[in-house]
Order: sequence, then structure tokens, then C-alpha cells
Amino acid sequence: MKLLVVSASPRKYGAVSFTREFVVKLARDVEKVEIEAIDVYDYNIAPCIGCVSDNVKLCRLPCVIDDDMGKLYELVLESDGIIFVTPIYWYNVPGPLKNFIDRLTVLENAIFTEGRSKVEGKVVGFIAIGNDAGAIAVIQNLMVLMNSFGMMIPPWALAYHESEEEPINNMKFLLDVANVVRCVSLMAKLVKGIQKVDYWYRADDEYKEVVMSIARNVYEEIYRQILLS
Amino acid sequence: MKLLVVSASPRKYGAVSFTREFVVKLARDVEKVEIEAIDVYDYNIAPCIGCVSDNVKLCRLPCVIDDDMGKLYELVLESDGIIFVTPIYWYNVPGPLKNFIDRLTVLENAIFTEGRSKVEGKVVGFIAIGNDAGAIAVIQNLMVLMNSFGMMIPPWALAYHESEEEPINNMKFLLDVANVVRCVSLMAKLVKGIQKVDYWYRADDEYKEVVMSIARNVYEEIYRQILLS
Amino acid sequence: MKLLVVSASPRKYGAVSFTREFVVKLARDVEKVEIEAIDVYDYNIAPCIGCVSDNVKLCRLPCVIDDDMGKLYELVLESDGIIFVTPIYWYNVPGPLKNFIDRLTVLENAIFTEGRSKVEGKVVGFIAIGNDAGAIAVIQNLMVLMNSFGMMIPPWALAYHESEEEPINNMKFLLDVANVVRCVSLMAKLVKGIQKVDYWYRADDEYKEVVMSIARNVYEEIYRQILLS
Amino acid sequence: MKLLVVSASPRKYGAVSFTREFVVKLARDVEKVEIEAIDVYDYNIAPCIGCVSDNVKLCRLPCVIDDDMGKLYELVLESDGIIFVTPIYWYNVPGPLKNFIDRLTVLENAIFTEGRSKVEGKVVGFIAIGNDAGAIAVIQNLMVLMNSFGMMIPPWALAYHESEEEPINNMKFLLDVANVVRCVSLMAKLVKGIQKVDYWYRADDEYKEVVMSIARNVYEEIYRQILLS
Repeated sequence: MKLLVVSASPRKYGAVSFTREFVVKLARDVEKVEIEAIDVYDYNIAPCIGCVSDNVKLCRLPCVIDDDMGKLYELVLESDGIIFVTPIYWYNVPGPLKNFIDRLTVLENAIFTEGRSKVEGKVVGFIAIGNDAGAIAVIQNLMVLMNSFGMMIPPWALAYHESEEEPINNMKFLLDVANVVRCVSLMAKLVKGIQKVDYWYRADDEYKEVVMSIARNVYEEIYRQILLS
Repeated sequence: MKLLVVSASPRKYGAVSFTREFVVKLARDVEKVEIEAIDVYDYNIAPCIGCVSDNVKLCRLPCVIDDDMGKLYELVLESDGIIFVTPIYWYNVPGPLKNFIDRLTVLENAIFTEGRSKVEGKVVGFIAIGNDAGAIAVIQNLMVLMNSFGMMIPPWALAYHESEEEPINNMKFLLDVANVVRCVSLMAKLVKGIQKVDYWYRADDEYKEVVMSIARNVYEEIYRQILLS
Repeated sequence: MKLLVVSASPRKYGAVSFTREFVVKLARDVEKVEIEAIDVYDYNIAPCIGCVSDNVKLCRLPCVIDDDMGKLYELVLESDGIIFVTPIYWYNVPGPLKNFIDRLTVLENAIFTEGRSKVEGKVVGFIAIGNDAGAIAVIQNLMVLMNSFGMMIPPWALAYHESEEEPINNMKFLLDVANVVRCVSLMAKLVKGIQKVDYWYRADDEYKEVVMSIARNVYEEIYRQILLS
Repeated sequence: MKLLVVSASPRKYGAVSFTREFVVKLARDVEKVEIEAIDVYDYNIAPCIGCVSDNVKLCRLPCVIDDDMGKLYELVLESDGIIFVTPIYWYNVPGPLKNFIDRLTVLENAIFTEGRSKVEGKVVGFIAIGNDAGAIAVIQNLMVLMNSFGMMIPPWALAYHESEEEPINNMKFLLDVANVVRCVSLMAKLVKGIQKVDYWYRADDEYKEVVMSIARNVYEEIYRQILLS
């Protein structure tokens, strides 16, 4: 059981970076699952050139573009679930995350070249963060497209923070993020036959305390690193 | 294991009605699951009056509005999965289906009154039909809102027909509808621990033949009824 | 020059009602234009039954459904601009507003029956209010559909309030609402050749003061009426 | 009076390229306006790095990123209207067009640094082209974001082609594209006080013939160039 977090953050000390680290720690400490994190801004990801429009059979692995996606395809294929952590740029994902998504086409398009989407049955969750409105607009686009890839969406697979305030002060957001990690993990275990699920969303006091404690630890660690740098 | 189909069709001989009957037959004959069908135009469903805006604790069963939703709430609660079959009215659901959805708030809002959404963990699929564009716009709204209710979305949970042509001539649509029924059924069984899933989308020749044969039977039966009436 | 405000508020003392009254007063006192206000919850508006799907020529005035829309069609036709004030119900308009919109089809469909949409060239603005996220999702649906009706959208035609706080305390929202009224009015005058436009969005101190003063007056008047009732 | 067409086409002989050339010829030959065309795939456009999240005052011209956007900002600023011609990549614009849009933030953000958006009052139109559904989803995102930039949207500002068929065979699409060019041009003239508008959408036989003739010329010219290359 392995999760992958895909974030898109040009600045390494902001709300998206905090949330990515928070997701990683929740997965490891609370859900006890393996997790890897990447940020699309740290990789060289060229735009998709739409070979599929010429001929649906042309779009297959290895992609004709030879760049960092080679390694990232492997991470996607190895994962049982993916959690996106995106900033809200004009009610949408930023360009580099869209390039990453466009390039995933080669995995989905295996339905036409090999008879089955290579991401079919993976579990997916969505976290959107911005200073202003637009979270639902960006999340609904990600949901419908990932479902068109053949991925499944567990209950409560969305969390958003639409405010100039720091996320550490938004209890509802922190709890929703924790439940995205929880539900993606539970669903991935369910699919693998590891575990049945009795209930999904947790909001009991014990859980809230654990979640808040992890959030504070992550926040302080980032703050310490900023001070040191 | 029981599914519910919720359609919204003011005319009883059109593409939405055909698709609803097709879904019912696919569920019974191919997926071997129990299924019930309702059309929101056949019921008296008053608009939600937003009690929740006054006080989140006010919105609880029984709803303050005494109409046909009483019976429909029971059907929703009894079901393991719901499949929406909606026409595309201005890139959106028609008013009566929106009233039905707004009134479901009382089931979701149990998270605040009883600690858990009454539709948490149900499986949901989406079929949109129109003469023109807009299917993705309406489906993405339904997806994100049903996920906010606590429902889960299996792989390949969407199908659409955007054309003035009859759906019976749209093989891709028929196959996608069959896979919506298949994936909703498989996911509901998975959740119940009845069955593991090896693969989701089916497009093999044997399956296509079965799907087309059912589609033709449903089409001819509707045609026969129109001639008789 | 005449504007129409269309709101959708089941409760007569909430944020949508406040905003509608605020819009009316801004139009009269600041923009010096005539304005009328309706709320779809106050009228008997039956659902559209989609005659257009049978034959595009069937959908024409008078609509086959004889209800309050007869009077409301007249108000729409008389207006030069329309401002929608909608609550956010599941990232979308509530059912009764969707019924109103669906029924406007007969005005747009005149493009097929008479060669020209009866709402072509009208100006339109959008205000969405909710306790939680979803404003952009609902506004973008309204924008693209009203543009498909043949209406035009002036600069800065959107305002939203996504919070459980009262709108009277949201200065950005109040200023954006004032600019929606301003830009819809300016655009309608521009189309009529009454006035050229030098700049659109106003945020100068004098304007802010006027806007805040009107907001407070409207708020106090509603408060007084609640106390009296 | 000058228009700018912004397309996003990785392949130089496809439907997006055809449509861009068609738009250019319509503007010159029918609307008699000056027009320039760019394709975002032909320029080096780095991703926005979100300075605005650190401090809203930091995002101002010249942008801290020194690349081809310098020249493209000038083209945008010189234009009275912009027409986007985008392929549909997963119900959204492709990554390179999103990077272009994200980088336009510096023009909009002048509202905070200089008191007025540098694109306020510009007119905008939208054309989306894909093999499958999703046109409305991508157009509604572009509409609401461009309106948030302070741009205005004339009547009938959208056209879409959702099919594997060539656009030359889609008469409705060709006519809608012509009307996008017409309405953007008319609105830009109206704003400048050059011309009043009597009606917007044209679908008379004389107009259709002119439009079809231009479409055929453009198609044949592209075909000739492909044969020569």
C-alpha cells in the first residue's frame, strides 16, 4: 500500500507546502501507510503535444517526450492512491500541474493501446488552497477528469482553504485534509481486500486532537527551517 | 444489494426514459442486482427552504416539508448505490432534479445532528443526455456535490450523449452506460465485502454484444408501447 | 433604462434578501436607473417540460404552461439588464431559480422561431451568497448559459460572499456588489448610446463611503422590519 | 481597433490551427478590423511563481520573469479584444495556455498596484475544440476568469466543436465562430464609440455563404501548405 502526493507550489514555505508535509505525516503516523511526495515545480515536465489527436495508437509508453515524466510515470504506476494538493490559480490548477495532468494521458490511453487504463482502480483525493474563491471549480474539474482516467473517488475526498489566513488556523480545513488522507487510505485498503470500512469521516475529539497535534508539529518544523535558512 | 435510478424526464418516450429503462435492465440481467427506478417529474417535491441557514440543527428528519420526499428518502436510504440519469438543461440539471438534490441535504446534514451523514459510503454514478454540449459541466457538479454528501464514485462513473441522434445509435454511449451500471454494482459489492474486483471497464466483444442486445430490446419495447398508446 | 433583479430566497430576512435590497438602492440612488425586484420563491413557476426536444418550433410564446411566468416574461423583456442574486445550494442555484432559468428557454429559442433571441443584447450580472465555498462554480454556470442566451457580460460582473458572517461586515463583497450594479448600468447605457464609459471598477474613498452608507441603511431597515414583525 | 487571437496548438495542421486562421480571415475580410495571431506553443512562457501570494504589491510590470511574455504583454495591452482558440485537454485548457493565463495576472493585479486593471474593458471571446465532450467546462472557466480580470463578454461569445470530424464539415461551428469574431468586433467598436449595434447574431443566407466561402479558402490553403511541405 503506497500513496503519492502531487503538489504544485512555486514557493517552498507557503500553504501548499505546509499542507503537503501535513498530508505526508498524517499518512505515516495516523494511517500507517507508505507515502511519497513530489512537487511538479521541482521537475522538468514538457507540455503534452497531443499525438493522440493524430492517431490514438501513437500515445503509448514510452512517451515520445524524454523528460522527468519518465520517473514520475513510475511513481504514479507504483502508487495505490494519489492526493493532489494544488493552489487555486484563476479557479483552476496552475500551468505546471496541468502539464503533469496532460502528460498522464499516456497512462489512461492504454485503454486504446492495451485494452486497459494503467491508472484504472487507483484511488484519488483533492486538496485546493487559495487566497480567494474557486476551490470547488478546480476540484470538480480534477474529479471528473481523474474519474475519466478510471480512478475511484472515496467519500469525503475533498478539502479546501479559501483565505489569506494561514491554514494552521482553519480547523475545518485541517480536519477535512486528515479525512481525505484517511478515506483515500481506507479505500485503497478496501480495494486490496486488506480491510473493511465501518465508517469514513472522523470528527471525534480524540481524532481532532491527534490531527491538530500533527498540524502544529509540521507547522513548527517548517518555521524552524525558514529561520535556519 | 440494491440500486436506485433517479431520472428527470418530463417526456416519457425520450432519450432519458430509454436510458433509465436500459439501466434497469442492465442491472437486473447483467449485474444481477436489485434495482428500483424513480423519475422526479412523477413526484411532488417542494423546494428546500434552507432551514440549515438559520440553524444547522434544524435540518433533520422528518423534514419540515411534508410531501413525496418522505417516501423518496426511504428509497435513498435503502439503496447501496444511486445512478442519476439527467437531461442537460443549460449545462446543468433541470429544476425538479435540483429540488430533489437540495432536499437530500437533510440526509447529509445528519453529520451535524447525529454525527454521520446518512448517505455516507453509498456509491454513485452519472449519466447526462442532451442535444448539445454541456455534459461534463453538469456531471462535474453532480460529482463534487455527491462526494460532499459522503458518497463514493467508482471508476468510469460517467456516461454522456450530446447529440440530436437517438442514443440507440451511439455505441460508445451505450457501452459507457453499461460500465456505469457495472462499476456502481461492483463497487457496492466491494464495500459490502461480497466480491473483489479484478478489472473495471469492460469492452470485450462478448460484453458489447450483450449490451447491444439489451439496448435493442429496451428500444423496441418502448417503441411498441408508443404504438399501442 | 431599466434593470431587473432576480433573487432566490426562501427566507425573507437573510443575506440574499439583504443583498437584493442593497442592489435596488444602489441602482436607484447611485446609478440613477429604474429597477424592479422579484424573488422566484414568491411566484408559481412550473418546471420546463422540454417541448424543444420534440420540435424546436414548438417552444415559442405564449409558453404552453400558463403560470406566473407570463408576467415574469414581460418583466424580463422590458429590462435592459438583469442582476441575479442567488444563494449557493450545493455549488449551484436552488431548484426554483433553475426552474425560472429553464423557462427562459422560450425567449432564447426565438432565434429558431423568429430569427432572433428575445434576450439578445441584454446585460447581465451575478451575485452568489453562501455559508461555504462554491460561488465561482455557480457563477460560471450562470455566465456561460446567459451568454448562450445572447446576453452580454460587462467587466466585473460578479460578486460573492462565502461565509457564515453577515455580508454587512464583508467590505470586499459590498464593494463588488456595488460595482456589479455600476457595470451593468454603465454597459446598458453604453449599448443604448446614452453614455461612454471611461473606467469601470470604482474603489475610491468617496465611492466606498457612499456604498457603505447605503449598505448600513438597508441593513438597519431590514432589522427594523424584523423587530416590528 | 485591433484584435488578438491567442491559440494553443502543438500541431500546426490540426483543427485549432485551421480555426485560428479562419478567425484571422473573418476579422480582416468580414469585420474589417486589424488582427494579430499568436500561438502559445511558439513562445517561451515560464510558469507564474505566485509572487502575489507573498505580497500583492510585488506583482507588477516588468514581471520578475524575463521571457517571451515581455513581448506578449505588449500585444495584449495594444489589443481591444482577444479571442482564445483552445483545444480541450481534459475538460480544460492545455498547460501552456494555462501558463500564459497565469502570467496575465500581472496585468490584472495593476488594480492593486496602480488602481486599475490593465485589461479592464477589453472584449473577449472563446472557441474550444476537441474530439470529445468538455467544451462548456473549459469555456465557463475562461469566461469567469477573464471577467474577473475586468474584461467584457459580448453576446454569443462562444463556439465549440466536440467531434473527431473536421470542423470544415460542422456548419453550426463555423457560423458560431464567425459570430464570435463579429460580436467581439462589434462590442469593441461600441466601446470606442465607433458604431452602435442593431443586432448581434447573424445567420442569414448571405452571411452563411460568405462564412462558408472563407472557411473553404482557409481549409484549402492549409491543405496546399501541407502538400508543399
